Amino acid sequence: MGKDYFLGIDIGNTKLAFGLVRDDEMAFSEKRVIPTEPQLGVRQAIDKILSNSRDLLVSVQDGVKGIGIAFGGFVDATRSIALASPNFPGWSHVPLVSLIGDLAPGIPVCMDNDANVAGVGEVTYGKARGYKHAVYLTISTGIGGAVLFDGQPLAGTQGLAAEFGHTIVQPRGPRCTCGSRGCLEALASGTSIGRIARERSQGQETIMHALVNKQEEITARIVAEAARRGDSLAQTILDEVAFHLGVGLANIISAFDPDIVVLGGGVMNSADLLLPGAIQVVEEHLTVRGAVPPPIEASSIHDDIALWGAIALAHAAVER
Amino acid sequence: MGKDYFLGIDIGNTKLAFGLVRDDEMAFSEKRVIPTEPQLGVRQAIDKILSNSRDLLVSVQDGVKGIGIAFGGFVDATRSIALASPNFPGWSHVPLVSLIGDLAPGIPVCMDNDANVAGVGEVTYGKARGYKHAVYLTISTGIGGAVLFDGQPLAGTQGLAAEFGHTIVQPRGPRCTCGSRGCLEALASGTSIGRIARERSQGQETIMHALVNKQEEITARIVAEAARRGDSLAQTILDEVAFHLGVGLANIISAFDPDIVVLGGGVMNSADLLLPGAIQVVEEHLTVRGAVPPPIEASSIHDDIALWGAIALAHAAVER
Repeated sequence: MGKDYFLGIDIGNTKLAFGLVRDDEMAFSEKRVIPTEPQLGVRQAIDKILSNSRDLLVSVQDGVKGIGIAFGGFVDATRSIALASPNFPGWSHVPLVSLIGDLAPGIPVCMDNDANVAGVGEVTYGKARGYKHAVYLTISTGIGGAVLFDGQPLAGTQGLAAEFGHTIVQPRGPRCTCGSRGCLEALASGTSIGRIARERSQGQETIMHALVNKQEEITARIVAEAARRGDSLAQTILDEVAFHLGVGLANIISAFDPDIVVLGGGVMNSADLLLPGAIQVVEEHLTVRGAVPPPIEASSIHDDIALWGAIALAHAAVER
Repeated sequence: MGKDYFLGIDIGNTKLAFGLVRDDEMAFSEKRVIPTEPQLGVRQAIDKILSNSRDLLVSVQDGVKGIGIAFGGFVDATRSIALASPNFPGWSHVPLVSLIGDLAPGIPVCMDNDANVAGVGEVTYGKARGYKHAVYLTISTGIGGAVLFDGQPLAGTQGLAAEFGHTIVQPRGPRCTCGSRGCLEALASGTSIGRIARERSQGQETIMHALVNKQEEITARIVAEAARRGDSLAQTILDEVAFHLGVGLANIISAFDPDIVVLGGGVMNSADLLLPGAIQVVEEHLTVRGAVPPPIEASSIHDDIALWGAIALAHAAVER
């Protein structure tokens, strides 16, 4: 096999990441990460995506054999148009696959939403490798999910399957960014953990406050750090987050009966504080009727999982 | 095409049903329904299943080309062994497919749990016909479910996918028959509607009481009848049931993004009292993030859907 390269592109609201991988190597031969800067507008962001992609394509003298794209938002049913991105106002119906395809005529380009692509990364390179029926959940600013049958993401009729962040785990519960109430995302995302902690710690003396200058600086990361240092409110908050996560996972497992569940995203840096409680809820719920819960594990690939998933898409596009 | 018959068998805790259908006709040429009488033991029930099946096979002079079985309980991953039935003590690991197969050597026999088989009936003969990605929910004594991709039920790793009756819709809610808490089945099954109504109506004067001799006789059917006659407690109870059903449906739709949801089972005789409220919850939850809820409809085939599903299985077994 010669010099075959694969290009992965991860388009998020915060950062744009680009990675080149040669043949079946397990490291990037080149990788770029730049800020998305959505405030500069859609056109500018697309220009950055295209010019950086072109640079990498040129750098390997058009030796790229396939391109994969992870898009941080909704994509259409054909997986060729990036419809909208929740935190990127103005982003609407961008034909990303053909725009990128124009840079490398004849080279296959595949796109999917970033949760599905991260799921593909997880079954190709991560903890879910070799499992036939995997569920992937990413918990960071928001909560996304993917269901993979034999490595292929379940799309659903409108491309909206596996929207686990918006399954209800506390009916009539707190308002979610989606506008509804009681969603898993409103109770267990990084953003929500920070919000809950700021509300609940108001006017109290906690280790959380000792770690920040201002109340507004209490984030999920601060909650986790304070809990590790013995802050009882932080521990209580994380216990409740673990409970809600357990309810969400119990429902996912009752619906899909997967053979593994992998959880990624920044909040899983505190997996040791959250997973044991969540797994206990799942076990208590399922084992009473004789079902055996699948392994529930934190991802071993953290930051780059969507980029690696995009590389896996690029490989799959060539083999198709 | 000659005289090709298909035999369907529906094994429930209350009744055993047997139906013969000729060619592609849409009516039973012969149908038997007898009580299961689980109190007489497993051996007696199996004897009844086998002797009635034999009778029907003989009646068409061995003209049967395929046999389908709907089993009201858990089946193993190979779909050949009926593992256990929740309300039939002593039922354990019965090799039903080979027992029935011995009656008709060389004829294909297919089995699945009754919710999956009813789902197959619904996509073959009912409201879900022609849909690629359907969800079926049966609400009667308990609540079961099926997810069908191109007419095929999703089994899951342990054969336990689509266990929607045991998804949590009220965390820390009432105790379910499964032993856990807050399951959809504990809040919206026929049994649960009756239990909730008996608890809540204690010591009150309601139309429900006017319809029965004793408090213990208040069932889901009585609640529905009283609600139709203007009983406000009965209406409140059904509104809450509709709310919980809506939460369960919203979670199913967020997980699978199906193109139709069909609800069957005896409780759907009160679909006019329950579905509008449930659909409202689904719409309020999903439309805020731009998702379009699929049609949610009551089954048009009520009592015999699992038997028709078994006939569809029998057809499919021959075509395989």
